[in-house]
Amino acid sequence: MSVETLTVYGFSVSGNCHKVRLLLEQLQIPYQWIEVDSPNGATRTPEYLAKNPNGRVPMIERADGSLLAESNAILCWLADSFDPKGSFLPADEWQRAQALSWLFFEQYSHEPYVAVARFIRGWAPLDSPRRADLPRLIERGEQALAVMEKHLQSKDWFTGADYGVADIALYAYTHCAEDGGFDLGKFPQITNWLSRVFATPGFVHMPSVSDDVAARLAAS
Amino acid sequence: MSVETLTVYGFSVSGNCHKVRLLLEQLQIPYQWIEVDSPNGATRTPEYLAKNPNGRVPMIERADGSLLAESNAILCWLADSFDPKGSFLPADEWQRAQALSWLFFEQYSHEPYVAVARFIRGWAPLDSPRRADLPRLIERGEQALAVMEKHLQSKDWFTGADYGVADIALYAYTHCAEDGGFDLGKFPQITNWLSRVFATPGFVHMPSVSDDVAARLAAS
Repeated sequence: MSVETLTVYGFSVSGNCHKVRLLLEQLQIPYQWIEVDSPNGATRTPEYLAKNPNGRVPMIERADGSLLAESNAILCWLADSFDPKGSFLPADEWQRAQALSWLFFEQYSHEPYVAVARFIRGWAPLDSPRRADLPRLIERGEQALAVMEKHLQSKDWFTGADYGVADIALYAYTHCAEDGGFDLGKFPQITNWLSRVFATPGFVHMPSVSDDVAARLAAS
Repeated sequence: MSVETLTVYGFSVSGNCHKVRLLLEQLQIPYQWIEVDSPNGATRTPEYLAKNPNGRVPMIERADGSLLAESNAILCWLADSFDPKGSFLPADEWQRAQALSWLFFEQYSHEPYVAVARFIRGWAPLDSPRRADLPRLIERGEQALAVMEKHLQSKDWFTGADYGVADIALYAYTHCAEDGGFDLGKFPQITNWLSRVFATPGFVHMPSVSDDVAARLAAS
């Protein structure tokens, strides 16, 4: 496998994309990052849609041109392919299934609320009608955060005994949930878990948002 | 493993739940099915929330009391644990990742539109304000169906060379998309693929909805 030519198509301040960068960095896998300005239509060009008809980032491309979309599927493939100890995605079938369960929870019950609230506050115009959705998104996102908080009352991590792909997936939009208008002060176990995530070997922070996004977040 | 005591908590006419029943039947795994009336609050009781704090079906329980939620995680675990040939979920890491990619696509880009449109038309009162969401759900659901249609122009199945977990996951709400107001006549490749799914060994149809749901669907 030509590891050195692994290419990532991603928008750096997207949590879904940063998941991929974080695991690549922590597994010390060389990669080329192609920045794709998804909020401004760069995933809807004919060229991009030819690679990913669903028009989303992140996506990875191997040296032979083969493609893989969906952030959490990419995490699983990277862990299976490049993590010799199997700690990021357990080999045990039941533990592995529990990790997958959290990955699906993240994409169905967490990201559509916690990430979308951040996106609307930071990227939608201040007078966008989409801002009317925010109270419902906050309510549903807090339900997801409460499920995480409950799990963390008795466990340090989401994937078996160690930090792994489920932690990476859930960290991605939880750590910046306050951008979406969530109060992490209500969730002390989550706050402690985030500190543990930040302290993992090779951890890299998500880049800062642009000045115009930061201004909209401040004004929201 | 005490296969004979595998318990499924599910609502039979939910596509997410029927996924699990279909794979159990096709793998000829004995199971006990506990019907959970999720539209009427049965997943929000203290007893159910103690098992699954996210309050959703399906969920499986093993003889030792261990639990697994999220339909697509359950499919992966069943395939890994009980499918000796590995055809439902390929062992090859890249093919496996492609199957996962479709499973995440299903939960993020398909189910929230195709399934939710069906749920609103069949289960919400005829004067529910949620019905105002239907045009947006139809638009986004058609985008997901178009992604499937494009894939099926060159492939017979979604998981590698054979019928597998991604086909099961995508079949679940696609086959009843017309309940949600979608016109499958626009998607001939999907229609042909559904015929192939129906013809797989051991296939079982989802039960019919109740008379009151059928009446609302007819009136929608």
